[in-house]
Amino acid sequence: MTDDRWLARAVDLATANVAAGGGPFGALVVRDGEEVSTGVNRVTRDLDPTAHAEVVAVREACRVLGDFSLAGCTLYTSCEPCPLCVSASLWARLDRVVYAADRDDAARGGFDDRAFYELFETPRTEWSMPVESLPAGTAPTPLVPFAPFEAWLAKADRTHY
Amino acid sequence: MTDDRWLARAVDLATANVAAGGGPFGALVVRDGEEVSTGVNRVTRDLDPTAHAEVVAVREACRVLGDFSLAGCTLYTSCEPCPLCVSASLWARLDRVVYAADRDDAARGGFDDRAFYELFETPRTEWSMPVESLPAGTAPTPLVPFAPFEAWLAKADRTHY
Repeated sequence: MTDDRWLARAVDLATANVAAGGGPFGALVVRDGEEVSTGVNRVTRDLDPTAHAEVVAVREACRVLGDFSLAGCTLYTSCEPCPLCVSASLWARLDRVVYAADRDDAARGGFDDRAFYELFETPRTEWSMPVESLPAGTAPTPLVPFAPFEAWLAKADRTHY
Repeated sequence: MTDDRWLARAVDLATANVAAGGGPFGALVVRDGEEVSTGVNRVTRDLDPTAHAEVVAVREACRVLGDFSLAGCTLYTSCEPCPLCVSASLWARLDRVVYAADRDDAARGGFDDRAFYELFETPRTEWSMPVESLPAGTAPTPLVPFAPFEAWLAKADRTHY
């Protein structure tokens, strides 16, 4: 199968998912020319705001392959992955991501993908959802933010990812 | 409980998770001064590259509350949320995210959070993981990228998120 055939399949999954009551997104993971997993948007059905098609396909591919790394795999998705899904792809160590529709199409469909990309380029102090560290010196509780990393680095048998 | 107490709890969860064989990250979701859920990093144990502490806490809070929106909730996390977790927080419509350690601490611990933030500020053409659309006109297969959104917009009873 060529890129365009895999993408057409992702788009078909997306369209079928609308009829099934889900969001208009579909994705699949391919390795060595073989389909490893598929995923469709299940946010509203599973009550899980992270159940984007790409995340679902990545999680399922990891389950199938028994590995938290998808190195050697390609993700095909019906729409440009949002920052959540790009990040999931990076952490999954995917080789490549290929998409059909883009963030402007998603915006026309009523989704926030483009808005969230724009937010990433905006100083956090301007966000309506603050992402903030505790101001230094305000903590009466002994708070040692680096303690978990110290424990991690001291653990000889840690599994790196 | 004040911010610093919740954060200290997130840090404690993170440290305990290292001893339990997981990554050095912990998080919790709080609403109206009550703990709704906790999460720890389960990437290597669950073979799920998206099982970051924040994502686990968000998914669990949604399950507990029976809602895909966490509007009205705050996420406390032992370390600055990476782009995956910031995005999950945005899609979950959290009111606020508060963190203890930062991306530089994570880098010192051997994690890619800072590297991925830097990647987001770099043109995709320079990424080692290409994120690309199919070049126009190369598809012999009839590929209609906007078709899923058309189906979506035509669906009167769609659930927006």
